[in-house]
Amino acid sequence: MSNDKKLVEAITPINEDFAQWYTDICLKAELVDYSAVKGCVILRPYGYAIWENITHILDGMFKATGHENVAMPIFIPESLLQKEKDHVNGFAPEVAWVTYGGAEKLEERMCVRPTSETLFCDHFSHVLQSWRDLPMKYNQWCSVVRWEKTTRPFLRSREFWWQEGHTIHETADEAKAETEQMLNIYAKMAEEYLMIPVLKGKKTDSEKFAGAEATYTIEAMMHDGKALQSGTSHYFGDGFSKAFNVTFAGRDNQLQYPFQTSWGVSTRLVGAIIMTHGDDSGLILPPAIAPIQVVVVPVAQHKQGVLEKAEELRERLSKFVRVKMDASDKAPGWKFSEYEMKGVPLRLEIGPKDIEKNQCVLVRRDTREKYFVSLDELETKIPELLDELANNLYTRAKENRENRTWACTTMEDVIKTAAENSGYIKTMWCGDEACENMMKEKAGLSSRCMPFEQEHLSDVCPCCGKPATQMVVWGKAY
Amino acid sequence: MSNDKKLVEAITPINEDFAQWYTDICLKAELVDYSAVKGCVILRPYGYAIWENITHILDGMFKATGHENVAMPIFIPESLLQKEKDHVNGFAPEVAWVTYGGAEKLEERMCVRPTSETLFCDHFSHVLQSWRDLPMKYNQWCSVVRWEKTTRPFLRSREFWWQEGHTIHETADEAKAETEQMLNIYAKMAEEYLMIPVLKGKKTDSEKFAGAEATYTIEAMMHDGKALQSGTSHYFGDGFSKAFNVTFAGRDNQLQYPFQTSWGVSTRLVGAIIMTHGDDSGLILPPAIAPIQVVVVPVAQHKQGVLEKAEELRERLSKFVRVKMDASDKAPGWKFSEYEMKGVPLRLEIGPKDIEKNQCVLVRRDTREKYFVSLDELETKIPELLDELANNLYTRAKENRENRTWACTTMEDVIKTAAENSGYIKTMWCGDEACENMMKEKAGLSSRCMPFEQEHLSDVCPCCGKPATQMVVWGKAY
Repeated sequence: MSNDKKLVEAITPINEDFAQWYTDICLKAELVDYSAVKGCVILRPYGYAIWENITHILDGMFKATGHENVAMPIFIPESLLQKEKDHVNGFAPEVAWVTYGGAEKLEERMCVRPTSETLFCDHFSHVLQSWRDLPMKYNQWCSVVRWEKTTRPFLRSREFWWQEGHTIHETADEAKAETEQMLNIYAKMAEEYLMIPVLKGKKTDSEKFAGAEATYTIEAMMHDGKALQSGTSHYFGDGFSKAFNVTFAGRDNQLQYPFQTSWGVSTRLVGAIIMTHGDDSGLILPPAIAPIQVVVVPVAQHKQGVLEKAEELRERLSKFVRVKMDASDKAPGWKFSEYEMKGVPLRLEIGPKDIEKNQCVLVRRDTREKYFVSLDELETKIPELLDELANNLYTRAKENRENRTWACTTMEDVIKTAAENSGYIKTMWCGDEACENMMKEKAGLSSRCMPFEQEHLSDVCPCCGKPATQMVVWGKAY
Repeated sequence: MSNDKKLVEAITPINEDFAQWYTDICLKAELVDYSAVKGCVILRPYGYAIWENITHILDGMFKATGHENVAMPIFIPESLLQKEKDHVNGFAPEVAWVTYGGAEKLEERMCVRPTSETLFCDHFSHVLQSWRDLPMKYNQWCSVVRWEKTTRPFLRSREFWWQEGHTIHETADEAKAETEQMLNIYAKMAEEYLMIPVLKGKKTDSEKFAGAEATYTIEAMMHDGKALQSGTSHYFGDGFSKAFNVTFAGRDNQLQYPFQTSWGVSTRLVGAIIMTHGDDSGLILPPAIAPIQVVVVPVAQHKQGVLEKAEELRERLSKFVRVKMDASDKAPGWKFSEYEMKGVPLRLEIGPKDIEKNQCVLVRRDTREKYFVSLDELETKIPELLDELANNLYTRAKENRENRTWACTTMEDVIKTAAENSGYIKTMWCGDEACENMMKEKAGLSSRCMPFEQEHLSDVCPCCGKPATQMVVWGKAY
């Protein structure tokens, strides 16, 4: 019984110590285990299943928009990494270096890929010949390594799992459209499947990807008001193409450089789910990616006919939801806690009295509301409740974001608001990096993005008083 | 037009230079590209799609037998790799070592995983507590690295993609049953989906996995008579459990060591498909894993109504097969060659005269037979032809194996047969490693396996004349 004992030990309350609450959930919902490699985690079956469901949904969207999966090598020779100067400056300080193969020292050291632009460009330079070959729209599912100093499961770890899309196009306009399309796919994934509202916008120059001309982002707000960059889509222009000599014969038969994009989301999305929806009882999973959508818990299961009925329901439900029936010898109360910790959206309780009445009890994970439902109505009632739960998760998260968003027009107001609250602060901005740095120094805020949906809050930058060119959303970020 | 020019350049004839023929197909069917990292390949979209189809089928079979996916770290600290002596001796000479993280030298170097038994055992030691937790049946899809000296796409490369299953069980019998079950799943995959007949058997001690008590294998014979080890399943007893101190409280409340298995197949299976079924025109893909099962090629596509009809057929076929319609401006003959090179099982030709007659032409990739088929019968005729093609691939491969299998009872006969032929040689064996070594030295043969289906060829070992204990199949292997 040791395992379920661990599970029902209370976790740290969410409003007492959010960081510890997060770690407790990662471990007690059995999402991860720490590994023998410092800063690298193990994705346990339940944690991996959440990620796997995310990958299946995204992979379908990528393929529906004409992308093909490929697999690139795990290593990048140092000379290849160095070809694009901004890129190597951004990544070289945080890569893991392989220096020996067996007992032999390598002639040239290689890093374990932190991202694969350089490998894709090298490949494009081999296979691209004519404008007829364009666009090439590739994606790969893999893990990458960045030798971070401080790590946290899902949010920042030395190895993480992700997808990286890499495309090349005949024209800049096509590449820009691709960058935008993929950001929209990420936003759709976040909002319609993970039930996490996101801000779409452009990163400031100082926050963009190493080597990109422009980086677009979806930013999510966590329960504690901190921001989580949840997906990015980059437009490279022809900078990498030139650095790697990727060329094609254009329609006019002249050699040209293609225009490039890359885009990625990672297991960080699992962290976003935990920190957006979870509560004091544990995880709450959006139904679209929940490994178990309904758990059937028999009550008084030793009584005649209960387990048989529970199994019959499981079989019936398996035709339209991901369902598990728990017939173990733990008490129902233990099971309730266990599946609450794991964030299973709906619990179905069935006991002798329910069977007599041809009904069961359905309990929603988010509101804990109980529904006494006729067994004749499960095929309509369960999808209905799952939908309601999903919508409620989204609404709650959006309310949290609205409650934690402030518009400021003076630096004094920014500093005071940031000191007293945790959330987004919207201000106008002149576009100068010096003012961006001042926000960091004086208020501890980083620029999250320049939202596509701009507002006019005032005419001037609150830092320097010069004319403002756009609105920026600032925050503290994971 | 540069791309299709490359495609229709003739490849090296299969019976002239099998190795070059193989490489030609890997490149011209656009399965792989060489990468900037020596010995590591890139899986291009078409090559990756074949592997992806294999993974989907296998993943379904793993889940249907109660296995769960996880993700382990990419690195193994040296001290962890060293805990099981046979294992480290087997793998340490061929691993890639990471010695630096960014600019800092690591306190302990780590290798990039060549296989993950050590990581799984370390994890099991954290999470296993009671017999109630058993069995734990895990699998991971990933790539692994072995620093090989000579490499060939799919068959032997420094990085390859695979799955590795790792399970622990309460009893030795359960673990042995798991080992056998997974070998049977691999055999089913090979025979019923890849249409490759395989020999199932046990490896001799000298050929077994580093650290295993027993290794079971499926061995396939390639077109040239050489053997390809295509999947292995290992029984570890409790050796790793003891080395890693993996324990659980048994039913009697005493601490016990669980019994362990591991099993894997890799992108090597793609190599097996190429070398089993291909011919002088290129690849021939078994329908179950073909990224394109039917290619629709419009003939005289400039004529009114042809492209529309081709598109209508593509749409209709997409409901029951993976179909592509090629409306590019290449001549039909170029397209025929291109999709033959890529091994697409069926070609559907549709031109103005066909449309008049309400028919189309179906051409089988394996036999090149042409079928004039009424457009009203496609839903029955296409699946029928795909089945016939699949069965024919299996039959041809099995005939090749039968024609290239010899039984020998004397060393003289073994040496003569091996010198004159390429294939399997069956002999009895006494069980001594010395005799196994003699087979290598005198006839250039390695033991492929001791087949489960044993035959009695004679009473004695042909090497030493001592009483034989079993029959071994010998061959030259990739």
